[in-house]
Amino acid sequence: MAVVVQKFGGTSVADPERIREVADHIARTVRRGDQVVVVVSAMGKETDELLHLASQVSKTRPGREMDMLITAGERKATALLCMALHDLGIPADSFTGSQAGFITDTTHMNAKILEVRADRVRAAVEAGRVAVVGGAQGVSTDHDVTFLGRGGSDTTAVALAEALGGVCELYTDVSGVFTTDPRVVPLARRMSRISFDEMLEMCAAGCPKPAMRAVEFARTHGVDLHVRSAFTWEPGTWITKKESDMEDAIVSGVVGDDSEAKITITGVPDRPGVAAQVFRQLADRGVNVDMIVQNVSEQGRTDISFTLPADGLDETEAATRELALEVGADEVTADGSIAKVSLVGAGMKSNPGVAATVFETLAANDINIEMISTSAIRISVVVAGDECDRAVAVLHTAFGLDAARS
Amino acid sequence: MAVVVQKFGGTSVADPERIREVADHIARTVRRGDQVVVVVSAMGKETDELLHLASQVSKTRPGREMDMLITAGERKATALLCMALHDLGIPADSFTGSQAGFITDTTHMNAKILEVRADRVRAAVEAGRVAVVGGAQGVSTDHDVTFLGRGGSDTTAVALAEALGGVCELYTDVSGVFTTDPRVVPLARRMSRISFDEMLEMCAAGCPKPAMRAVEFARTHGVDLHVRSAFTWEPGTWITKKESDMEDAIVSGVVGDDSEAKITITGVPDRPGVAAQVFRQLADRGVNVDMIVQNVSEQGRTDISFTLPADGLDETEAATRELALEVGADEVTADGSIAKVSLVGAGMKSNPGVAATVFETLAANDINIEMISTSAIRISVVVAGDECDRAVAVLHTAFGLDAARS
Repeated sequence: MAVVVQKFGGTSVADPERIREVADHIARTVRRGDQVVVVVSAMGKETDELLHLASQVSKTRPGREMDMLITAGERKATALLCMALHDLGIPADSFTGSQAGFITDTTHMNAKILEVRADRVRAAVEAGRVAVVGGAQGVSTDHDVTFLGRGGSDTTAVALAEALGGVCELYTDVSGVFTTDPRVVPLARRMSRISFDEMLEMCAAGCPKPAMRAVEFARTHGVDLHVRSAFTWEPGTWITKKESDMEDAIVSGVVGDDSEAKITITGVPDRPGVAAQVFRQLADRGVNVDMIVQNVSEQGRTDISFTLPADGLDETEAATRELALEVGADEVTADGSIAKVSLVGAGMKSNPGVAATVFETLAANDINIEMISTSAIRISVVVAGDECDRAVAVLHTAFGLDAARS
Repeated sequence: MAVVVQKFGGTSVADPERIREVADHIARTVRRGDQVVVVVSAMGKETDELLHLASQVSKTRPGREMDMLITAGERKATALLCMALHDLGIPADSFTGSQAGFITDTTHMNAKILEVRADRVRAAVEAGRVAVVGGAQGVSTDHDVTFLGRGGSDTTAVALAEALGGVCELYTDVSGVFTTDPRVVPLARRMSRISFDEMLEMCAAGCPKPAMRAVEFARTHGVDLHVRSAFTWEPGTWITKKESDMEDAIVSGVVGDDSEAKITITGVPDRPGVAAQVFRQLADRGVNVDMIVQNVSEQGRTDISFTLPADGLDETEAATRELALEVGADEVTADGSIAKVSLVGAGMKSNPGVAATVFETLAANDINIEMISTSAIRISVVVAGDECDRAVAVLHTAFGLDAARS
């Protein structure tokens, strides 16, 4: 009998009616003969509401207490889902992260899983019961409640699938992984399969689901993931070791991300250690730098550009001005309205013309490229923020990803 | 250094502002030099909201899952209160019932405490930290989350005070225990002291706070209780082993309770075992019978009356009709609009005229007595429901309990 770990996100259990629908789906899986373990997130926007409540009560918000607070959300969802299952005649038991055996480190708000002692969960499914586990939570080696961070429920599901030797289904509000965002490009296609490496590049490029950390965990432990919709229940996208099975696929997907900003330091003295000095100090200030581009120098001076999440732009710009002064650079400019457009595909490795096609396509459409960065299976370009959707669409077409028009 | 256990009810922590006020009060206690352990209930009406949510999701609502759900409420409150304490520079740690060492039996929704292993709580206070414990919760001998039932937070506080050898302060939305309900009798006085026995009789007579179970626990283990207001912070009422310290107090308090109903079985054959048969079967059906009165029989037949919570009247009346038929009684009548008025006082033991004064006072005010029941330190009478408040007021005056008019 196979163990199936099914993870349901907050949207899937947002209200009593949806909880009953999810219970109905789980019941069908059980009656099909599988042993089912369920991981569930907090209902709808509850995590946001709890964070808001904390901000109303306190300015300090220590991590230990934030974790105690936030994990109450998943706890409620597990209990309610179990009740709905009982209503359908399916015996089910809820488990907190601690009860499910998630031992973590002591980093609150973003704890790392050290070990999964899944004995109670295993005993439940072997006794013919559905185990419903609170997502994104565990207990630290100091015996305190911990929260694995946003998107941590995906990681909980993957870790349980690994511990129990099962497959992992991530139910979400999209029906799988698409060649690009279907809201931007109506001809986007759902991929039936994508490799871990490609998925990781797509996550890094800004694809919001599934959570990158869960994909990393799945890749490390070889747990196959199935991303699918909790609204339609139709088969979605498998994320596995195998590379994309789309014929002749050079590029698997195009990801647009307009949540970043760009800072450029011009006239940086071109001597060893300057870049290291700048980025070490930015890292120490907690700035999450994404792309970094440095051109060849002219007359002993060079320009360095980098991208970062737009919501930290003002602070980082001020900090960068100080650093520029220290290293003797000329000027610092910032641009909050940029977009990063990335193409991901394992097929790029053996197709040297991909970058050229990207540049030609954008040029033919009068879209200016501000920065370029590449890896073995990804090309990212920075364009003006208001060109993001158009750049995604023309690249999607250029690489033959558009679905046949019906 | 003394350990003080302070318990705050749901009204006291109903919103962020009130949570900060409670934190401020705790901070004052800490700065006074005491070691403080706090027990907190769920915010405002949250427990009711969780119960409503469960009723929307499920018809079965298994106890194990209800307990997992409901205890999320206290968990939130503990974390938020700790954050507010941190803001005031007071180090504080939240603890679930399980973390605080509350081992219970496996009776969900109404678990009994078997043992309190307060090591973590003790370690926290000895390290100069405030321990904030979720009320009314524990972990069963089967390692499941359990809920101690409504009013269970009071019990949690008393049990912690016992385990840590401290005093117990119950903060609530009234400023102590009164000679009667101040909303009914404006001249009601707050008692400065009342004995466990008297308090238990007042609880049994319908006095809503503190929870009877907590008073029983405190009495068994000799834990002094201090019931006081979380709004005014003024000293309230001490509940201790000692009898009332009010001079010449024959009667300590008068309690009116209009939440009960009355059922009378007339013409019951007066043979041994009939009453036993009736009340055993009612008990088996879960009917919570309060007062039972049986008069002397006439011509081999007698009448039996009993009171019960009014919200179960219809079902119980139907059941009683069946039982009456079985035992060969004449008739069953039910009255949903009665009130029980009780006088409680340790001084009654040595004052045989109390009952007579009660009857005279009610007669002089044209209030008819339908049933009478007494214990060593209590007299209860049943009157018409709409006479409840007037009966309480005239008895309060007759026994000299009215405060001096200002």
